Amino acid sequence: MIITIRPEASSEERAHLMTLLCRVTESRAPIASTRTAEREVIALDGALIDTQVQQLLLQQPAVAEVLPLKTPYQLVSRSFQTTNTRILIGADHTCDTVTVGEASASPVIMAGPCAVESREQLLKTAHAVKAAGANVLRGGAFKPRTSPYQFQGLGVEGLKLLAEAREQTGLPVVTEVMETEMVDMVAEYADVFQIGARNVQNYALLRAVGKHPSKHPVLLKRGLSSTVEEWLLAAEYIMAAGNPNVILCERGIRSYDPKTRNVLDLTCVPLLQEMTHLPVVVDPSHATGRRELVPTMARASIAAGAQGLIIETHCDPSVALCDGRQSIEPETLTRIIREAKALAHLLHENELVQVA
Amino acid sequence: MIITIRPEASSEERAHLMTLLCRVTESRAPIASTRTAEREVIALDGALIDTQVQQLLLQQPAVAEVLPLKTPYQLVSRSFQTTNTRILIGADHTCDTVTVGEASASPVIMAGPCAVESREQLLKTAHAVKAAGANVLRGGAFKPRTSPYQFQGLGVEGLKLLAEAREQTGLPVVTEVMETEMVDMVAEYADVFQIGARNVQNYALLRAVGKHPSKHPVLLKRGLSSTVEEWLLAAEYIMAAGNPNVILCERGIRSYDPKTRNVLDLTCVPLLQEMTHLPVVVDPSHATGRRELVPTMARASIAAGAQGLIIETHCDPSVALCDGRQSIEPETLTRIIREAKALAHLLHENELVQVA
Amino acid sequence: MIITIRPEASSEERAHLMTLLCRVTESRAPIASTRTAEREVIALDGALIDTQVQQLLLQQPAVAEVLPLKTPYQLVSRSFQTTNTRILIGADHTCDTVTVGEASASPVIMAGPCAVESREQLLKTAHAVKAAGANVLRGGAFKPRTSPYQFQGLGVEGLKLLAEAREQTGLPVVTEVMETEMVDMVAEYADVFQIGARNVQNYALLRAVGKHPSKHPVLLKRGLSSTVEEWLLAAEYIMAAGNPNVILCERGIRSYDPKTRNVLDLTCVPLLQEMTHLPVVVDPSHATGRRELVPTMARASIAAGAQGLIIETHCDPSVALCDGRQSIEPETLTRIIREAKALAHLLHENELVQVA
Amino acid sequence: MIITIRPEASSEERAHLMTLLCRVTESRAPIASTRTAEREVIALDGALIDTQVQQLLLQQPAVAEVLPLKTPYQLVSRSFQTTNTRILIGADHTCDTVTVGEASASPVIMAGPCAVESREQLLKTAHAVKAAGANVLRGGAFKPRTSPYQFQGLGVEGLKLLAEAREQTGLPVVTEVMETEMVDMVAEYADVFQIGARNVQNYALLRAVGKHPSKHPVLLKRGLSSTVEEWLLAAEYIMAAGNPNVILCERGIRSYDPKTRNVLDLTCVPLLQEMTHLPVVVDPSHATGRRELVPTMARASIAAGAQGLIIETHCDPSVALCDGRQSIEPETLTRIIREAKALAHLLHENELVQVA
Repeated sequence: MIITIRPEASSEERAHLMTLLCRVTESRAPIASTRTAEREVIALDGALIDTQVQQLLLQQPAVAEVLPLKTPYQLVSRSFQTTNTRILIGADHTCDTVTVGEASASPVIMAGPCAVESREQLLKTAHAVKAAGANVLRGGAFKPRTSPYQFQGLGVEGLKLLAEAREQTGLPVVTEVMETEMVDMVAEYADVFQIGARNVQNYALLRAVGKHPSKHPVLLKRGLSSTVEEWLLAAEYIMAAGNPNVILCERGIRSYDPKTRNVLDLTCVPLLQEMTHLPVVVDPSHATGRRELVPTMARASIAAGAQGLIIETHCDPSVALCDGRQSIEPETLTRIIREAKALAHLLHENELVQVA
Repeated sequence: MIITIRPEASSEERAHLMTLLCRVTESRAPIASTRTAEREVIALDGALIDTQVQQLLLQQPAVAEVLPLKTPYQLVSRSFQTTNTRILIGADHTCDTVTVGEASASPVIMAGPCAVESREQLLKTAHAVKAAGANVLRGGAFKPRTSPYQFQGLGVEGLKLLAEAREQTGLPVVTEVMETEMVDMVAEYADVFQIGARNVQNYALLRAVGKHPSKHPVLLKRGLSSTVEEWLLAAEYIMAAGNPNVILCERGIRSYDPKTRNVLDLTCVPLLQEMTHLPVVVDPSHATGRRELVPTMARASIAAGAQGLIIETHCDPSVALCDGRQSIEPETLTRIIREAKALAHLLHENELVQVA
Repeated sequence: MIITIRPEASSEERAHLMTLLCRVTESRAPIASTRTAEREVIALDGALIDTQVQQLLLQQPAVAEVLPLKTPYQLVSRSFQTTNTRILIGADHTCDTVTVGEASASPVIMAGPCAVESREQLLKTAHAVKAAGANVLRGGAFKPRTSPYQFQGLGVEGLKLLAEAREQTGLPVVTEVMETEMVDMVAEYADVFQIGARNVQNYALLRAVGKHPSKHPVLLKRGLSSTVEEWLLAAEYIMAAGNPNVILCERGIRSYDPKTRNVLDLTCVPLLQEMTHLPVVVDPSHATGRRELVPTMARASIAAGAQGLIIETHCDPSVALCDGRQSIEPETLTRIIREAKALAHLLHENELVQVA
Repeated sequence: MIITIRPEASSEERAHLMTLLCRVTESRAPIASTRTAEREVIALDGALIDTQVQQLLLQQPAVAEVLPLKTPYQLVSRSFQTTNTRILIGADHTCDTVTVGEASASPVIMAGPCAVESREQLLKTAHAVKAAGANVLRGGAFKPRTSPYQFQGLGVEGLKLLAEAREQTGLPVVTEVMETEMVDMVAEYADVFQIGARNVQNYALLRAVGKHPSKHPVLLKRGLSSTVEEWLLAAEYIMAAGNPNVILCERGIRSYDPKTRNVLDLTCVPLLQEMTHLPVVVDPSHATGRRELVPTMARASIAAGAQGLIIETHCDPSVALCDGRQSIEPETLTRIIREAKALAHLLHENELVQVA
């Protein structure tokens, strides 16, 4: 259920509403108001409120509207917001900007190395992906590694190198944030917070990027075996905490066949577009784990309606410290971007994409 | 390991080779010669033969060539046959013909109802899918149903209706064969044998369609949770029994998210095209289980390189006896075919498809 | 819905009932009467019949009782038969007999090699498993192999060797039947039909063992990724065809962790005992794929309530042609049987097993 | 590879070793010394070190021993420590103590409500589980919930109630810690840190409980779809950070059958006991998600060799705010504990448990 607050409601009226809500939910659910692009709302699980209480809520002076939704997710729902959310990347630093979720013909391309390894590697790769036509630079400064003995990233030094690469190329930067303590630091250097697959249900971290004053967009990867609903609820945590700029990123789910790293679930793209107004991008690199499959699956992702791609690219994949097996070279990226644009253009021309 | 027989080898030379092979494998592996499009071969698991024996084989007068392959699958391997297999559908009855696996711009479209329910339903749907541009009529006469109390298909009556629909529309017919006893009967009425997901490891059935004198093409669906390798080995059973006309059909694999019926694994399309010379088609209807997702996933399948689509279409999905939830109406099929052709044309023009 | 026929109903009354049922189901569901241990019944999907029709059925002179069941499975349901089904093995040949499903302290142990490889191997192993305390000899004469180039079993020769081993040891024999054409042959030599995991939805085969006049017990393995409900419906196919002697065999399900061959789902044992009256046995050999895990998982299976175990045992696992990695030696079997009996005794003494 | 430091090594010698290691790993892997129960060690990925470097390391005065291990996990490996790790619970507060991992006949039982809901609910349940024979009280003060609108736990108030329950009953307390910021706070009130399934790869949190000066034992739940190796590497993060007191808790893995919440993978118990010296306990409540299956699966867990159980128990499951469906009543717990002890005793008497 989503309760829209009247903009002119007094603080007494708001307080009264809050008290009422706490009483009806018996304090067993968090109650907080949130600001979306257009309005101030309170969202809560519809199952907690019966029709009688709903009537009572509508009589409150602080309340403009009550929208009952039967799904567990609320603010991310397409029923709450029927138009696509458009998210501007790059507004907070001096660099290029790009919008994800635009009903335009061009998908947003995020590219770069799995991990920032050195100044030379990063800058060389950054210039190459820029030249290939990418819109955003990706690169891990903090790396979540299955083993404590693997390379864990360059840390803050890596963040600084990403900022330098942005300065040189104009590309805004997306990088993973793994800990609540690092959110401020990452916000300072990056343009987009990435939440990795392993942290999709790290609720403290979701809340931290949700309430961070920067309101940097959040690239929320799907968990290793998240259902679509669990993933949307992770996005809901971020929105409910105050940040409406969430980009969903499909990166494959765990399955039984060792031939590919994960199973890319492209059907989730049109499914999500039915369920949510948030943009969806696809990461064919982690999904397949094999570089020779990336170009084809990038193309299929665009055909499935993805509004962007995130692709691991390395100036020299053979020496990559991390995930070299799935990294492509900049020349391949050039071809992928050219194809993605041509395909998106064709789909758009033939009105094969939903314009909302 | 694949041993190519010299065409002019005498029967004594052949017998001598067979005896040698039986001896080295200690009779623990079946040894039989098979005829592919171009030559006569004997395939067997490479692990059974060491280098010394390989040398010995090469000295046999019956042997033209020995190709050692490290994979468990042999005849279906791209290493054995580097060019795409092209499979002609419709040659054995008076009707249209169409080739799957052609490096042309047009994917083959198979469409029709899940089950043949009545003369009226089938003929109406058949004419509608023909008008929409489909190349092959699909329809189940024998239905594998999870419960013994569900509609099991019209049986032989259904086969006759399919043949009548072929006569009226010119569309060749693909239909499922579920039992070895029915292979002759199905061969008489149908143009393509379909092996369903539940029978992908029913080896008696695979052998039966493999050695059937009709050599009708076989549409081999992936099993509910087949690995790509297991699936290729199922195709190998058919080829090893003598029928080289196998079409692989991805139809989704089992996973944990109830939002869709299965998870469509589109990555298997480019993966298979690396591993095998056999054509690959996609069934977005069974994969998603929801008609509103079918058009988008049909498009993504073509972008992934699928050489055809098989789509459940019903003249009135709301009354379908089987899988109505995933059946589309003929109007939607018209749009899907138009899109698929446009997309395939674009990909072909830009040389985004592998031409072998 | 299960309709019990009055024993004294006349053939006219029966025919009248059949006609009525065909009319109300609009011929879209198979209608056939079946004989369980105690009565003659007609089972059909309850969803086809509304309350009004149910009233009509009760008024038929042929009808003794109507039991509406909401589950898709009917005859296998614990709601239809509240007492455990007891299945006698070995009654049709001159050999020992043993009952599965008895609420006694001793689980039934089936043991033997994966495949019958030679007279010597089989007889040596058979005597060893008899000495170890096993009740039934297992051994594959026809082997379903993922690759057509692997050892496929000795076929009929293997069946004859199994019969010879029975003669020598007194142990009844369970062996896999893979094709409808072989059901008669297997029935002649074996005491229990085994349906393998790959054939759990081979409905023609399920029907063939269901209607075979021998009424040999059927050991129905769970499919690679069968849900419990799909598996029960496979058992329902057999019962609906006339054979009530079905033993369910959990053998692990497919999952993502390569450390074990499958994931043994022991929770299905108490779950099935709630849902069905059929006995449940466990195959820890195929489930784990590693012999060192078999003794512990055998023990856990008994603690979970399994009424028997089926364990791959080979007189010399290191030279086994098939699944040697998971075969144990007879000495280990001796220990497993001793433990299983002690554990079952303890559970029984403490009334930890459901006695129905 | 695990390098044991000579206790008498000088700080110069240690520094020299560190410099050498940094050089050979090219600073691409973290290097830190850790203290296990008996010695000071440095662990690192064996693949980074070749034989030549290994020789060099052995010549260092700071080095007592070098143990090369081929597995990615090191300190948790059974090859590093062959005896079972015994972990004392309850030493840091005034309460009962209990040891997990002891080769004794009695498994450790942790029981209590999913969430602390109120003083009355917690104290009533705590007294009841104590009376039933439990050794440790479980209860969530901070709850990781899929939706932001669900009850999130009482927070610090919940921790205080747990401490009060410990005072009244003498039971040590295990409770989940979800954020690095809360580790100090949870350490103050609890005896065991629980890391939930969703946080098994939250490496910041693993490190935080690893390096916390309390060295409270850590109950590390398996992730929703962790492989056994990934799970051991999560434990390795904790050990490498300095806390050797890790208890592994199997709680079911995600699968495709909706009949149970998860699939309880009991085979991991003997598998882990081969691979690691850490104790393993089982949570049949979350694994099955249905209270009627808990007693049987508790029994099977003990038979599989689990050294303890963690069982959701509520004084009134019908009003539980969280997971009531899987919570049992105290009477059932009494029976489960009685059975578990009898079974463990039997297994121990018959030497069916590995004593290390």
